[in-house]
Amino acid sequence: MGERIRSVVLLGFGTVGSCVARILTERSDLSEYFRLTHIFNRNFEGKRVDWASKSIVWTGKIDAVFASKPDVVIELVGEVNSAGTWIRRALLLGIDVITANKALLASKAPELLCLAAKHNAQLSFEAAVGGGIPIIRGIREGLAGDTIIGVVGILNGTCNYVLSRMAATGESMDLVLNEAKKLGFAESDPTADVDGHDAVAKLVLLAGVSFNHHLPLAHIVPRSIRGVADIDFKYAQELGHTIRQLSWVQRQEDGFCTFVGPALVPLTSAFASNDGANNLITTIGTHGGRNNFQGAGAGGYPTAVAVVSDLIALLGNSQHVPEEALWNPGHITPSPPRKHYLRFVVKDRPGIVAAITSALSAEGTNINAVFQLPGYPKDQLPFVVTVEACEESALKRAVEEIGTMDFHAKTPLVLPIWS
Amino acid sequence: MGERIRSVVLLGFGTVGSCVARILTERSDLSEYFRLTHIFNRNFEGKRVDWASKSIVWTGKIDAVFASKPDVVIELVGEVNSAGTWIRRALLLGIDVITANKALLASKAPELLCLAAKHNAQLSFEAAVGGGIPIIRGIREGLAGDTIIGVVGILNGTCNYVLSRMAATGESMDLVLNEAKKLGFAESDPTADVDGHDAVAKLVLLAGVSFNHHLPLAHIVPRSIRGVADIDFKYAQELGHTIRQLSWVQRQEDGFCTFVGPALVPLTSAFASNDGANNLITTIGTHGGRNNFQGAGAGGYPTAVAVVSDLIALLGNSQHVPEEALWNPGHITPSPPRKHYLRFVVKDRPGIVAAITSALSAEGTNINAVFQLPGYPKDQLPFVVTVEACEESALKRAVEEIGTMDFHAKTPLVLPIWS
Repeated sequence: MGERIRSVVLLGFGTVGSCVARILTERSDLSEYFRLTHIFNRNFEGKRVDWASKSIVWTGKIDAVFASKPDVVIELVGEVNSAGTWIRRALLLGIDVITANKALLASKAPELLCLAAKHNAQLSFEAAVGGGIPIIRGIREGLAGDTIIGVVGILNGTCNYVLSRMAATGESMDLVLNEAKKLGFAESDPTADVDGHDAVAKLVLLAGVSFNHHLPLAHIVPRSIRGVADIDFKYAQELGHTIRQLSWVQRQEDGFCTFVGPALVPLTSAFASNDGANNLITTIGTHGGRNNFQGAGAGGYPTAVAVVSDLIALLGNSQHVPEEALWNPGHITPSPPRKHYLRFVVKDRPGIVAAITSALSAEGTNINAVFQLPGYPKDQLPFVVTVEACEESALKRAVEEIGTMDFHAKTPLVLPIWS
Repeated sequence: MGERIRSVVLLGFGTVGSCVARILTERSDLSEYFRLTHIFNRNFEGKRVDWASKSIVWTGKIDAVFASKPDVVIELVGEVNSAGTWIRRALLLGIDVITANKALLASKAPELLCLAAKHNAQLSFEAAVGGGIPIIRGIREGLAGDTIIGVVGILNGTCNYVLSRMAATGESMDLVLNEAKKLGFAESDPTADVDGHDAVAKLVLLAGVSFNHHLPLAHIVPRSIRGVADIDFKYAQELGHTIRQLSWVQRQEDGFCTFVGPALVPLTSAFASNDGANNLITTIGTHGGRNNFQGAGAGGYPTAVAVVSDLIALLGNSQHVPEEALWNPGHITPSPPRKHYLRFVVKDRPGIVAAITSALSAEGTNINAVFQLPGYPKDQLPFVVTVEACEESALKRAVEEIGTMDFHAKTPLVLPIWS
């Protein structure tokens, strides 16, 4: 096409970085557009691979990378501080940046997007949400003609692996989580995944591209999946549901309501049939209704596909960044009333159900059903109360009051029931 | 942004066209980029609406439209001949074209894409496949970093409405199809939908964007869903399956294999849970694996979303059209062996099963199971034979041989079993 070949540098040669290099090496059709010139990694000597082009410079010095005046920086170092420094440095120089760094973007996207716009650079991050699912481009370009009012999804593959396997096998969370670590579906410290921080970061990015608003990270408090026990899948099944970690944002008149945590989802829903480490994201638009995007939410190659797609997109994109694409601060508002599932494990004695139901009634929450599966010991007796759609704040006060009662053998679990 | 406002003309003010005009009227954020100047429709006088801008020129004269020197032509007239003429005329003038005309594109895309490239114009057709699902952009841009090897999907909302409702209610096809016409889910003449020609056209477009090859329309022979009876859902259910119209293309070493028609799909599959007029498209990539895209496959507003998204994409796209994006001729090759479901309705007498099974054996197809649900009359006795994975040509010969036998009360039905 007579265009200049763009030089590309890769920061980080871990799982995703090496897959990106591999795809760029194999895709001969891209060689007339892009050349991978540098691979930066702290311990680069141990990382060298024989399949990569001999012309690539392997280095542990970031200054050497920038001295080469690259056209594109691909940032896959997977931590926040240095990555932030390098991304800013690149954007200030007008260098296009592609990153999968959800943690960095979730807190700094507005600043970085402004910086990019100011210096006529592109900042792309398809790989930061949903692994290989083209959801960022799907919302921002594919659904540009719609007005998105909500997004709900399974954004964390680790949680989905754990919960869908617990549902399928009846195993305990500890057992499944340990197995997930062995299989590479969970980190050795899975806190960011199971406690929901990873999903919150991704939700903030989805809200950003959907609404051009930046939700305040600190105001989205995720609920951990750690409280979910094998018994909850049995009760959920009785109710025609299973349990998944959901992340949800919806535009309201006065801001955005959000939820990140485990929830009951109908067995007939697409969420229930989303198994293993797959991600599933549903967009809700004023005109187009619901669109589902489903695929591999993680993994080296799927995530690398997202990175390389961002790279190829640079060929077609002019530097057009509409003002609306910059994110304004967003405000979190309370969620509308929703049905809930409350599971208690108690040391049985008379009057417990009465105590719980009157605490709920005192806050104006209406009980839908109380039920109990047979076959459990009296000193560890599980039972479930479902409540009709109620204000979250009222339910919270009632559950706090119930929590002070002396009959609990385990901490009560409260899950919203998704409809 | 200081850019010139682009003038847009709309050809065709039917269901989709009026929704496009409505979105462009409502989206004040787009008014700094685009202005709808002309609405062309043969009987334009009866079409005028009070919500459209007074500045829009309504006309039935195509020359008046072109005389205005538009920047973008949106073609939604819904027939092939004039649409082709007008699209060529626009592209020759370097005018960007957005169209939903799958029938035209399925036969003429290579010529029109070349014409667009030659005259530095864009030819966009997100709305031609999958209604509001951003599948064209999803494959071409979102998955640009992957190498697509196959696409399989539910591409026709009418067939899916009919088959999913037959599965749910046990009603006959005639009854459901009549109901679908009343509800607007089927045309008064549903031939193009139920006989698979609409799905073939969409498959050709998906293959085009996935592989940059143009499959020869005449060599993809669809199978009609008309032969599927209520009894088939009962037998399918016994086998853990239901029935959907599938469209499938897969890259092989020596070409592309395709299928368009009704097939048994597992009840646990995403296809089985795709109900009503929704579309579901699965892409299979070398690196990213499977991605599912699901949403409204038709309807005025969802399809209009795709059109408006194409329009907005013109802002970001430079005139870069890589050579690879032009479609080379593709060649159809036989499909690999697949399991099949064979349903017979016979006038019962001894020796029928023996005759059928020996005809199958003679062609080397192995029978997996023969089974029969109770409660049917002896002169209209349905039963099913499932055969193991076999060459389609051998099965075809066997079924032709069986078809000549004198015991049939109805034409046998042959469906592939999707795994």
